[in-house]
Amino acid sequence: MSELEKKVKQKLLDTRDSTTLKVRVDDTDLMQVVHFKNYLMYFDQGFVSFMDGIIQGVSNCVEKGIVFPVKRIEIIYENSAKFGDNVLIETRVKEIGKKSITFLHDLYRESDRALLAKVESVRLAMDWNTKQLLNVIEFFANYV
Amino acid sequence: MSELEKKVKQKLLDTRDSTTLKVRVDDTDLMQVVHFKNYLMYFDQGFVSFMDGIIQGVSNCVEKGIVFPVKRIEIIYENSAKFGDNVLIETRVKEIGKKSITFLHDLYRESDRALLAKVESVRLAMDWNTKQLLNVIEFFANYV
Amino acid sequence: MSELEKKVKQKLLDTRDSTTLKVRVDDTDLMQVVHFKNYLMYFDQGFVSFMDGIIQGVSNCVEKGIVFPVKRIEIIYENSAKFGDNVLIETRVKEIGKKSITFLHDLYRESDRALLAKVESVRLAMDWNTKQLLNVIEFFANYV
Amino acid sequence: MSELEKKVKQKLLDTRDSTTLKVRVDDTDLMQVVHFKNYLMYFDQGFVSFMDGIIQGVSNCVEKGIVFPVKRIEIIYENSAKFGDNVLIETRVKEIGKKSITFLHDLYRESDRALLAKVESVRLAMDWNTKQLLNVIEFFANYV
Repeated sequence: MSELEKKVKQKLLDTRDSTTLKVRVDDTDLMQVVHFKNYLMYFDQGFVSFMDGIIQGVSNCVEKGIVFPVKRIEIIYENSAKFGDNVLIETRVKEIGKKSITFLHDLYRESDRALLAKVESVRLAMDWNTKQLLNVIEFFANYV
Repeated sequence: MSELEKKVKQKLLDTRDSTTLKVRVDDTDLMQVVHFKNYLMYFDQGFVSFMDGIIQGVSNCVEKGIVFPVKRIEIIYENSAKFGDNVLIETRVKEIGKKSITFLHDLYRESDRALLAKVESVRLAMDWNTKQLLNVIEFFANYV
Repeated sequence: MSELEKKVKQKLLDTRDSTTLKVRVDDTDLMQVVHFKNYLMYFDQGFVSFMDGIIQGVSNCVEKGIVFPVKRIEIIYENSAKFGDNVLIETRVKEIGKKSITFLHDLYRESDRALLAKVESVRLAMDWNTKQLLNVIEFFANYV
Repeated sequence: MSELEKKVKQKLLDTRDSTTLKVRVDDTDLMQVVHFKNYLMYFDQGFVSFMDGIIQGVSNCVEKGIVFPVKRIEIIYENSAKFGDNVLIETRVKEIGKKSITFLHDLYRESDRALLAKVESVRLAMDWNTKQLLNVIEFFANYV
């Protein structure tokens, strides 16, 4: 691994991202708490925020045809968020493989910092036009 | 207007489509009824079903790069659907313009045929690659 | 109409609310722009923001069992938002009836202030437990 | 464990449920395939279908105030579904604890039976009014 790649890897592992979003009415369901599928959208926003810090805009990547499909997710639900809550999402990298990168996301209710959910997600980087997977470190080396 | 175009227009105006779908847990919100935005998705399924009857698959159109953006919607909400309900969607064409087609959708709770909502929606036909609007009658003439 | 009610009505008619939100990946669809149903969720956030300015928290109302069902919506779509865009939502009251209140929402792409959609929405105020409609002015008079 | 409880447990472990649903336009995102959060809604439909076979209607339970919160999910994504696809969901029980029940869901594209995703989900049974967890076997013993 080159010096640049080591530096990139270290930067990714050292980055801590923290972002907040408001629960919307349509995020809730008849149990009057957020439907469990919507936590995926919350930590997806954590990913977007993390990436915005590193590469100045996931949406720019998407425009260039680079996308980040999710390969695997594990969520443990601890508490429920409801309408009116703000959700705090803390995101960091757990490990970086050749073709994948594993994130950890902790979701909290902002008001009392109650843990809502713990998430581990594995993502790939892919050229959307060719459907080829990218080497993750090489991809980030273009930006960091 | 050619004979073919008259025939196409008449066929569209005469078609009545009826389709049913089940309310999902995640369609509901904290009021324990379907969130009002989801009725748009219900009548969108009415549109898809209508078109499947005419052109054998909206998804085929989409693959060929023809899409049907919505230009205008009006919805009047009469009753609420809840989890466990089946929603019956009746779709017909109200009028056909050069570049637009107006649909009427009546949404019913299937069990007691209570009217849930009345919808009027105006759609365009567009070549997704060139972003050019298509002449609606000409578009359908390829299929009918 | 009492002095208080006139004052409440005037305050509602004079209020201008403006709020912004970020388009999420899952708001888009295969046309690579925001799915038309999601504009309902955007202007719903405009309503929430407007109400937060007047009554310090729609979510508090919801907890007390007061909800705001939508009776009628009209949307005219002018342009499309995409991932990476911020949507600016400007909300004001058009008119106030006995049992309903009509809002106007203009949705803009924040970067170039292109108009995305114009919305007119009629809402009711309802006691969720009794399902009784509330007199709108009286409801607001408790807060203003 | 009583004879009844053994019978209930065996019935749950022996049941195989299979249900199909159509991908909707609004399930897709800008990658033109189903957004990863929507697979949660697909296997949630698998759960609903499984339960409908056992207890004649999850929605009836919900009306009686019994809900089934999700405690943990793991998903491995293998392929992407797109608009026009039908998704086949096969659901079975992996194991039954005192307060939890673990489901396995395999999601397939119906046309070519390509595996889309493998899901393991842990659910609880809860009295929504008291927020008390129910003993899973006892709960099902009322129905089987």
